[in-house]
Amino acid sequence: MSDSNSAVTRMHKYNPELTDLVFDYMRDRLAMPEVPLDFPGDKQVLAAALAGLIKPEGNPAADVLKLYDKVVSRAVVSGDSPRFMAFIPTAPTKAALLFDMIVSCASIQGISWLEAAGSITAENQVLRWMADVAGLPQSAGGTFVSGGSAANLAALTVARETGRENRGLKNRAPVRIALSKQAHSSIGNSLAILDVEPLIVETAGFAMTVNDLTIALAKCDPNEPPVVGVVVTAGTTNAGILDDLSGIGKFARENKLWFHVDAAYGGAGLLAPSTKSLFVGIELADSITMDPHKWWFAPFDVAAILYREPRLAAAVHTQDASYLDVLHEDDDVINPTDLAYHLTRRARGLPLWFSVAVNGTKAYSDAVEASVQLTREVAELIRTHPELELVIEPSLSVVLWRKIGWEAKDYRDLQDRLITNQTAFVTPTSWQGETVGRFAFVHPGTTIEMVKEVFAAL
Amino acid sequence: MSDSNSAVTRMHKYNPELTDLVFDYMRDRLAMPEVPLDFPGDKQVLAAALAGLIKPEGNPAADVLKLYDKVVSRAVVSGDSPRFMAFIPTAPTKAALLFDMIVSCASIQGISWLEAAGSITAENQVLRWMADVAGLPQSAGGTFVSGGSAANLAALTVARETGRENRGLKNRAPVRIALSKQAHSSIGNSLAILDVEPLIVETAGFAMTVNDLTIALAKCDPNEPPVVGVVVTAGTTNAGILDDLSGIGKFARENKLWFHVDAAYGGAGLLAPSTKSLFVGIELADSITMDPHKWWFAPFDVAAILYREPRLAAAVHTQDASYLDVLHEDDDVINPTDLAYHLTRRARGLPLWFSVAVNGTKAYSDAVEASVQLTREVAELIRTHPELELVIEPSLSVVLWRKIGWEAKDYRDLQDRLITNQTAFVTPTSWQGETVGRFAFVHPGTTIEMVKEVFAAL
Repeated sequence: MSDSNSAVTRMHKYNPELTDLVFDYMRDRLAMPEVPLDFPGDKQVLAAALAGLIKPEGNPAADVLKLYDKVVSRAVVSGDSPRFMAFIPTAPTKAALLFDMIVSCASIQGISWLEAAGSITAENQVLRWMADVAGLPQSAGGTFVSGGSAANLAALTVARETGRENRGLKNRAPVRIALSKQAHSSIGNSLAILDVEPLIVETAGFAMTVNDLTIALAKCDPNEPPVVGVVVTAGTTNAGILDDLSGIGKFARENKLWFHVDAAYGGAGLLAPSTKSLFVGIELADSITMDPHKWWFAPFDVAAILYREPRLAAAVHTQDASYLDVLHEDDDVINPTDLAYHLTRRARGLPLWFSVAVNGTKAYSDAVEASVQLTREVAELIRTHPELELVIEPSLSVVLWRKIGWEAKDYRDLQDRLITNQTAFVTPTSWQGETVGRFAFVHPGTTIEMVKEVFAAL
Repeated sequence: MSDSNSAVTRMHKYNPELTDLVFDYMRDRLAMPEVPLDFPGDKQVLAAALAGLIKPEGNPAADVLKLYDKVVSRAVVSGDSPRFMAFIPTAPTKAALLFDMIVSCASIQGISWLEAAGSITAENQVLRWMADVAGLPQSAGGTFVSGGSAANLAALTVARETGRENRGLKNRAPVRIALSKQAHSSIGNSLAILDVEPLIVETAGFAMTVNDLTIALAKCDPNEPPVVGVVVTAGTTNAGILDDLSGIGKFARENKLWFHVDAAYGGAGLLAPSTKSLFVGIELADSITMDPHKWWFAPFDVAAILYREPRLAAAVHTQDASYLDVLHEDDDVINPTDLAYHLTRRARGLPLWFSVAVNGTKAYSDAVEASVQLTREVAELIRTHPELELVIEPSLSVVLWRKIGWEAKDYRDLQDRLITNQTAFVTPTSWQGETVGRFAFVHPGTTIEMVKEVFAAL
């Protein structure tokens, strides 16, 4: 019995050698002044390198770790390198990284008050800080989910159900939600999942204004499904543009439309003195998405969904099952798991909590401001460069630029050249049908010199 | 400039003292022969302990870590303790835990082939193993999401859209999906999000059979929305029951119904020689949910969603945005991010990959079998106990039991008594309207002696 038991628990026993191996690897990584950018990989080469690894008897840990270090990890472009300027990078603080390891190490979850009062209290403390930064009332609350897509879906589900409820509509009655074409793809995909027809608001400029919205609503046929909510973006992923939060927010409240603010990327701009004022009106939101793994310096993957009235979300998302009854004995208790579409959840908000507690909120403001200032320097560099043009004036920390005369292929060639030389990871985007260059800055270690290296490679 | 730069990058600089502090904490935790079960917490006491922590200037890291260690973490019941027998516990191997820390440490993501070919190749290797275990064809593929709820939603979205497509129905046309009352709460919540009306199949026994399904379908009015899919459960969370996978699977294929198997908890039973045969028919699935953070010994949070034809999922879930065009230049490439409702994603499958590669698949089979054997021993203990009864015969590793004469309050008092004494975390459930005792075993370190300690406290 004890022999057989020790055999089956072998995988769960402390192994000092394996621990040393992994700890040494991690310390080396943490101590790097700048992590390597690394490379795209070849599917066939990688598959060949890993072939046969999964087998009944296993492999020496040192061999597998070496394979990971030398082959697998080299074929992952490091999102946390200051030279990663594509999509939206990540830039976790060392405190946040280290605490994310603790969450892993101790299997810390944040499901229900019954099981996880400690981690939930800490997560709620940092959520309250985010709510304060956005100016939400004391009633506000929320939870952390795995990404902006999940956060937007959670919020829009509540928008749909609350909209039906307020209008006395039955289950599955058709309703619509308004958004502009600049909204993130996850908004469109959320609405598709929800079977909610989008009302696409035509915008006179690049940002959606209350005027755009009222024109779109005025054109609606009263026989069409009612519009129950509106989604605005506080910092589009593609270009960093903010919709008219204040005008649309007031209109939404007056007209009983759910007001969802997608600030997945941009929300951290609330922390920077020079961009804070762009967010006036966000305090009117019924729900806000903000992703700590973007510009709040937390590691993958974590997004916050905040609700003005969390009880509306709990009414929609609470999962009802016999074995879970014990979590809901007290009707007043709202568990994190009741506030989005998830059940088991890692306490993924703790790394942000620890890092903010240790570093202080001022360091966060300074670090976000640094990216805003870098963006302005880069914009000036482009303005004064004979062959470059700004495509639009940047608002937060995304820069769209063109090189005069360049076509799509030129930008793609640049991307390849830059990653081959490990200068930067920069991918093009499209703007009004034109392929253009794009930077997104969130890492405070990204410097104007690094951007100059990119331009030197044009 | 360099001064101001060093100020804003302070949070991102290597800090040997902080690293030592956290590494020492983690090593102590990893070296524990058995992690403490720990306690429920008091909301007010916890809030008071953390009050004022978030402030502009921050706090010494050692103080915050101490507060976490002494206060916060003590109020999180350890899901990875072998004495945690409630809900579905978690039981990560040391290799999986350590590798999850590496994923944190190096911000390893698994979004697209362009950025993350290395981590995706490794994740796909372990997904292929899971698909092989389930007997899915070579066409199969999938991705890892944050939990079973997200996996089920991803699959049922594809079920709905494929069902509409196959029947020539327009966008948002009403359709239904069949399930039994024993299906997990997340299935019902997924269908609610999807605006899909559930067809609740009445079951003659506790498991759904093909006969139950055909009777329910025969009763349908042809004017009602068409049924496009059926969800079966391979190991209910509440009681470990498996529906008739083989009968329903064949019927579903013959009748062009999407066949989704929710094996979130139970799927690992495929690895145990003594329960493998219960899963015959799972190989017919169009989609399968299996959660590595349950019985596959991976840390929170990770669930696998596997599709028979991943291209059907990519057609539904791929997010379309200008700045993402570069990910989809090759039409044949399917990114992990295209296979569920997510975009940015931690490479959350790597801890399982590393642990299986190191420990070998046989160790996994042995460890799962250990919980099945423990379940049988516990069932025998109950059968021969003068005051206890088995509520139903266990199939996998969930045991429902009653003490003769006990009422709901007795089970709740037992729960409190056991956690106060750190004997075990055991919560009641309800079965046919009766409150009963429940164990769920997934940790190979859980012993019959620990269960005897629970019964000694009755």
